[in-house]
Amino acid sequence: MKRNLTMLTDFYEITMSNGYLEYGLEERTAVFDMFFRKIPDDGGFAIFAGLEQLIEYIKDLEFTEEDIEFLRGKGQFSEAFLAYLKNFRFSCDIWSMKEGTPVFPYEPVVVVRGPIIQAQMIETMVLLTINHQSLVATKANRMCRAAEGRPISEFGSRRAQSYDAAILGARATYIGGCSATACAIADRDYGIPAVGTMAHSWVQVFDSEYDAFKNYAQVYPDNCIFLVDTYNVVKSGIPNAIRVADEILKPMGKRPKAVRIDSGDIAYLSKKARRMLDDAGYPDCKIMATNSLDEYIIRDLLLQGAQVDLFGVGENLITSKSDPVFGGVYKLAAVERDGVLVPKIKVSESIEKITTPCFKDVYRFYNRETGQAIADYVTVRGETVDDSQPITIFDPMATWKKKTVRNFTAKSILTQVFDKGRCVYELPKLDDIRNYCADQVAHLWDEVKRFEHPHRYYVDLSDRLWNERNDLLERINAE
Amino acid sequence: MKRNLTMLTDFYEITMSNGYLEYGLEERTAVFDMFFRKIPDDGGFAIFAGLEQLIEYIKDLEFTEEDIEFLRGKGQFSEAFLAYLKNFRFSCDIWSMKEGTPVFPYEPVVVVRGPIIQAQMIETMVLLTINHQSLVATKANRMCRAAEGRPISEFGSRRAQSYDAAILGARATYIGGCSATACAIADRDYGIPAVGTMAHSWVQVFDSEYDAFKNYAQVYPDNCIFLVDTYNVVKSGIPNAIRVADEILKPMGKRPKAVRIDSGDIAYLSKKARRMLDDAGYPDCKIMATNSLDEYIIRDLLLQGAQVDLFGVGENLITSKSDPVFGGVYKLAAVERDGVLVPKIKVSESIEKITTPCFKDVYRFYNRETGQAIADYVTVRGETVDDSQPITIFDPMATWKKKTVRNFTAKSILTQVFDKGRCVYELPKLDDIRNYCADQVAHLWDEVKRFEHPHRYYVDLSDRLWNERNDLLERINAE
Repeated sequence: MKRNLTMLTDFYEITMSNGYLEYGLEERTAVFDMFFRKIPDDGGFAIFAGLEQLIEYIKDLEFTEEDIEFLRGKGQFSEAFLAYLKNFRFSCDIWSMKEGTPVFPYEPVVVVRGPIIQAQMIETMVLLTINHQSLVATKANRMCRAAEGRPISEFGSRRAQSYDAAILGARATYIGGCSATACAIADRDYGIPAVGTMAHSWVQVFDSEYDAFKNYAQVYPDNCIFLVDTYNVVKSGIPNAIRVADEILKPMGKRPKAVRIDSGDIAYLSKKARRMLDDAGYPDCKIMATNSLDEYIIRDLLLQGAQVDLFGVGENLITSKSDPVFGGVYKLAAVERDGVLVPKIKVSESIEKITTPCFKDVYRFYNRETGQAIADYVTVRGETVDDSQPITIFDPMATWKKKTVRNFTAKSILTQVFDKGRCVYELPKLDDIRNYCADQVAHLWDEVKRFEHPHRYYVDLSDRLWNERNDLLERINAE
Repeated sequence: MKRNLTMLTDFYEITMSNGYLEYGLEERTAVFDMFFRKIPDDGGFAIFAGLEQLIEYIKDLEFTEEDIEFLRGKGQFSEAFLAYLKNFRFSCDIWSMKEGTPVFPYEPVVVVRGPIIQAQMIETMVLLTINHQSLVATKANRMCRAAEGRPISEFGSRRAQSYDAAILGARATYIGGCSATACAIADRDYGIPAVGTMAHSWVQVFDSEYDAFKNYAQVYPDNCIFLVDTYNVVKSGIPNAIRVADEILKPMGKRPKAVRIDSGDIAYLSKKARRMLDDAGYPDCKIMATNSLDEYIIRDLLLQGAQVDLFGVGENLITSKSDPVFGGVYKLAAVERDGVLVPKIKVSESIEKITTPCFKDVYRFYNRETGQAIADYVTVRGETVDDSQPITIFDPMATWKKKTVRNFTAKSILTQVFDKGRCVYELPKLDDIRNYCADQVAHLWDEVKRFEHPHRYYVDLSDRLWNERNDLLERINAE
């Protein structure tokens, strides 16, 4: 069932690689960073996700005979290059954030070091994999925060942007905090609990709503979530659910699990439904809402006192509809020359698009007492960060904005996952990733978690890195 | 390399199916329609796409031992049902629009008739497949119309919502009118021409931009598209491209194909570049623009006289960023009772959400002389449409709005693709789909093609269908 996705790459990675080989650069070491510039929905942080699939892809990298034949047919590539691809063996080092980590603009989230031809070749899939799952995990985390502890189920497969978007999207929503999915294959393959009971068609197929509920309860007495809006929630759906609970479930010693409202005004209907269920002796019967929800509607519903215990979210989550692109980029940071790594920078008219050169590391500073995350600190790799002393950090775009950090521990948050092409990272269980994410988000300031105009978390450069960057810019300008 | 996606389904399809079997409804015939309510970006029409993948999915439907075990482990399903799944053989009839067809809200684009348990089971994948590719094909068509004949290449893989979104997304952009893709695997598997030359990293790896261009030209003299914005388009990129064209290509009898501008003001820079290339004797060297483009920017650039010959579009196309969801739904239209199909309707508080009952067909009326599409006409299946006489059609939501159509031919636009589970449709070649799409779009009124507030194309119901719908609504209201 494994797909070989080696050829899922932009064609220019291949033309460039052929060129690098032509000029004998295949062994020249380069360092590339993946980073992003903008947090989706103008939020305060993103959730890093997709590493497991990236690792799988890299482990499986292999150009098949079919691929080689296809490329030969393009008439652009040398036989030496095609032979190189045939014998391709990945030998780069890769460092990455762990899945579930809150991440911030302008810090490297993946660092690749190795033969330029290889480091270049994986660009498309590094970006594709991490961009997609980070996008969806970030959105899920926003919705889960809005729901304030109420479980959210992911119901978006039918509106996902194709198959993997449904399956791996469900995985990302789980990392971000969702509790379940409607997607059966995501349960089979990733162990994300799949849930689901009935659609409107079930209710319509039988002679009446009452018959439909009764028939359902007889087959699934332990798992009754009645869809109550096919005709009229208050006049028909809830009364029929109560009647079936009384007539069918009660004699069996069972209770209805929930009612689901999929249309109409959720605030109004959920309060009505709550009262009716309570009065009928079912205060434990939960109310689920599932109608084009997002973090703003969820927050507003709860502010209005909606009696919703469970949410199901579809298209707005699985596509991150309000901001459906995670704009990670993959940029050259250094290239070897005579055995030494030479920092590289991409200049640009717009200041925000200038890259940070050098082979780098990222430290996160945590308050020694509360464990709160204070700032991220990007260094030249190999620099030691002494967290026994106060340290003054500054905004790299506005160096006069300074802050002295005291009483903290500094922890490198980039983990090595490949060592000369060999995977050295043990993949965590999905539930552990999800718990790790929840814990890390809990250690962010509330101000960073605000939906609108959140506080900008500090991502600062070490003195040495800032100087390297500045020197390089001065030099280029002088030329 | 084929994946079995049978289990890519919402869990409730499985719980409902198990219930249908329990009640002996597995052979009861039902009719489901897929239709949509809103055109992405509030456009005048959508492009139907994804049928080929839907057909493949249905042909491959098979519950493996692993699937059965997984389902058994959920502890909710009867052994009779698991045996049913093990021996599952698809036996429905399916009618569908052809890929590349302009389609409109509220008309069935896919119709499934067969045993309810089966027709229900494929819901998720019908929607997922058609929603995704129709979304992207529709967006591509908008962009291609904005480009007024200039070729557009699809460059969005790295920002696609996972792997299939990149690959099948590229397929959909090609149907919608794009000319090429950056996605190598989409060329290998679907024959969409893959293109691509160099990234900024290529330019940065060598000692200078001049060296980078020179080295590229020596390897690819026939395919030189120079990326000219790494340092400065006007001061450095274009002059270096011209120098390399003069020094390297000219002596070989070759010409540069294009320069690519990926940042800065495209209108200004392209005009400058055009003049410089013309003055240097390269009026045939094309100019390609590739910076966060969409249909509006493309239109504005051309209005401002930008000298762009080729466009490359990334995230805004592959995710349909401005409106990333195609909201197709799948609704029950009829259920057999005592050997007769009984129409079914889903009522709703909001009028637009009321479904159209009955087993239906869709005719498109074409002007007999010009071939222009005049209106779509939804009928009860089996009704004859006499196009030798004028016919008065009316808006089903505003029946006083009438129009008499004369001198037209009526053509059923739903094609049978499965007959009792057997595929009876020969898949067209992708290029034929693309040409068909272009031809069909050419036969729409310009007013329907406007980006803002397009004319609403008529999708009307036959008298008989309208009466069926009205009678059903009256009856339900009376109850």
